[in-house]
Amino acid sequence: MAVEASTDGRIQRGNETRRAVLSRAMDVASVEGLGALSVGRLASDLGLSKSGVFAVFGSKAELQLATIRAAQATFRRAVVSPIEEREPGLRTLRILCDCWLAYSRDRVFAGGCFFFATAAEFDAQPGVIRDALAAADHAWRALLTGQLRAARARGELREESDLELVSFALYGLLETANAQALLHDDPGRYEVASRAIDRLLRAEAADPALLG
Amino acid sequence: MAVEASTDGRIQRGNETRRAVLSRAMDVASVEGLGALSVGRLASDLGLSKSGVFAVFGSKAELQLATIRAAQATFRRAVVSPIEEREPGLRTLRILCDCWLAYSRDRVFAGGCFFFATAAEFDAQPGVIRDALAAADHAWRALLTGQLRAARARGELREESDLELVSFALYGLLETANAQALLHDDPGRYEVASRAIDRLLRAEAADPALLG
Repeated sequence: MAVEASTDGRIQRGNETRRAVLSRAMDVASVEGLGALSVGRLASDLGLSKSGVFAVFGSKAELQLATIRAAQATFRRAVVSPIEEREPGLRTLRILCDCWLAYSRDRVFAGGCFFFATAAEFDAQPGVIRDALAAADHAWRALLTGQLRAARARGELREESDLELVSFALYGLLETANAQALLHDDPGRYEVASRAIDRLLRAEAADPALLG
Repeated sequence: MAVEASTDGRIQRGNETRRAVLSRAMDVASVEGLGALSVGRLASDLGLSKSGVFAVFGSKAELQLATIRAAQATFRRAVVSPIEEREPGLRTLRILCDCWLAYSRDRVFAGGCFFFATAAEFDAQPGVIRDALAAADHAWRALLTGQLRAARARGELREESDLELVSFALYGLLETANAQALLHDDPGRYEVASRAIDRLLRAEAADPALLG
């Protein structure tokens, strides 16, 4: 019994260390990049022992990959979960875009969109890190496209709407809001993006009244 | 006379070192970021003496700022100079966008758009580097907006066109082409961007025939 309790304690401490390190790692990576992550630096930032952090994350690549997975979970909670119970389609797509803008504006990650920062960092460096970021990007694009497909199936889009182009344009408006708001310290760019999204979706809607 | 010749020789060698270092620095920064630049690393990459490079670039920040200035000159040659003698307006704007896509696709910088990579790196790190990147970004946005203003003055745009939104959307389509083509190793994204730009400009044109 005592042995089990002690094992439980070790596991719990390991989980707490893991959570604390990943939380800090997500913020550091969003501001300075995944390249700035190291076991030593994070241990020092958090006042933990380097060996304790090493016991949880054995290598820099392991730490970087775990940080990407943790950031995906945070992204899903902030951006995707608010629409999960809604009927897919044009109105839900609009809400999804608003959640994305709020996620960047409210600095869910200290440096704005985690995936914008880290994909730009690794996009020209092939390897497991870029593969993980490409998979996350693919999942996000699939979510946008899925909402557009649902909108088409429900007859909410104009006949001539090209889902690939609309999805590409929405993605660009969101990323640009994040990029310009950060670079120029200008939250007004979220408002411009919101108006541009509204204009785009109304132009593609079979009936703009669908968007309220 | 001998002294002058020797001075000329030193200046020439300094200029050659400067050009070689900046050329390498632009490629390194576009792939790995401005944070990866150091006098020691560049000297070693190029087989130059560290002291020789130090004589030209005294500090890391000086090297980073000189690299940004050199990248702006390269960007102007690749993207802006092809339209400089053209009448500003909708057709010239379309050509400017094509030049931008070619600049990213042809890897004028090894890591794709230098300014996308480095702005994403520094956008959450206030200081002289971010200020220089913000100024470069501002100049690019002013160029896009200037073409749209000329198009409006020439009566090429629909009454209800909102120049700020069109400029923001174009910027997003270009950056997204670069980001996705690199991250997914997929040059097909330039084609999607080109079709999206065509669709956007035709939708805003008073007469779509203006775009050929």
